[in-house]
Amino acid sequence: MNMDIPTINALPYEDFVNIFGNVVEKCPIITAAIWSRRPFESLTDLEAAISQFIDALPESGKEGILRCHPDLAGRDLQSGTLTRESREEQAGAGMDALGPAEALRMARLNEDYKQRFGFPFVICARMNDKTRILQQLSERCQHERAVELERGVEEVKKVCRLRLQALVRTAASNKL
Amino acid sequence: MNMDIPTINALPYEDFVNIFGNVVEKCPIITAAIWSRRPFESLTDLEAAISQFIDALPESGKEGILRCHPDLAGRDLQSGTLTRESREEQAGAGMDALGPAEALRMARLNEDYKQRFGFPFVICARMNDKTRILQQLSERCQHERAVELERGVEEVKKVCRLRLQALVRTAASNKL
Repeated sequence: MNMDIPTINALPYEDFVNIFGNVVEKCPIITAAIWSRRPFESLTDLEAAISQFIDALPESGKEGILRCHPDLAGRDLQSGTLTRESREEQAGAGMDALGPAEALRMARLNEDYKQRFGFPFVICARMNDKTRILQQLSERCQHERAVELERGVEEVKKVCRLRLQALVRTAASNKL
Repeated sequence: MNMDIPTINALPYEDFVNIFGNVVEKCPIITAAIWSRRPFESLTDLEAAISQFIDALPESGKEGILRCHPDLAGRDLQSGTLTRESREEQAGAGMDALGPAEALRMARLNEDYKQRFGFPFVICARMNDKTRILQQLSERCQHERAVELERGVEEVKKVCRLRLQALVRTAASNKL
């Protein structure tokens, strides 16, 4: 059973941001902004409000969203400073259990990607495994910058959808 | 001696966001976005880039920024979950040492303000003391919503300026 939409619509902004503030990694401003769009008809409608907010940002704002994301299998994973959501997602895709050669390859490709585009490689880890992530990273390094900006933002939206769905289930089981 | 602007302009986005990510409270996306605007001519120019980014946001985005701010003398102060910057600013203005009557008055006015406007009362604590903050909070509760949205954003910019200046001094003394 999920937390229902009337319950979500009745949340004061502080609770709404506490619960949903990290559906876009480290961008609680987005959650906080779309609270103004209540009432939502459904979770899909809430998700659409987030997408629309992101789409309306200038290009630098979209780049800013990507730059708030950690590298996959990067410094934050190693130093334990990932957000809870990222930690779970990266672990689920095996990013915390790379062999030495895979880890080196991942680090080099991440660096290449960032050097080339000025933002990190973002992919919805829950929809991929380690092999596919390495393959995608390698391929996407070859793209045009504009293509990758758009692609990164699309991946952010996929992550957002899965985080939203998980939170609505968790909040319901906690009898919020 | 301050960290000079060529040093700032040479920072990779990860370092830039690590250092300056909280100049607007809990909105690293803003810092991350304006990295795209390098090179900056001066700290004032960097600050102007932040202001322009904020000004270009839709109304909901500006509300979102305010909603990422903690209450003064509120839950986050009591539970120790303020950001470092907020904690120092609130302590400097005496928010951690209110008498019982002042604390009650502050809590009630904060609640009134949030009920009325749908975002929290934001004021640059470093430019005010406890008496002045309570007086301003009381007065500003009476304003029109649009006036308060604009006023809150102006206060965010004042906080941002002081945080930027402090960080540039600290980073220089740490020989960044």
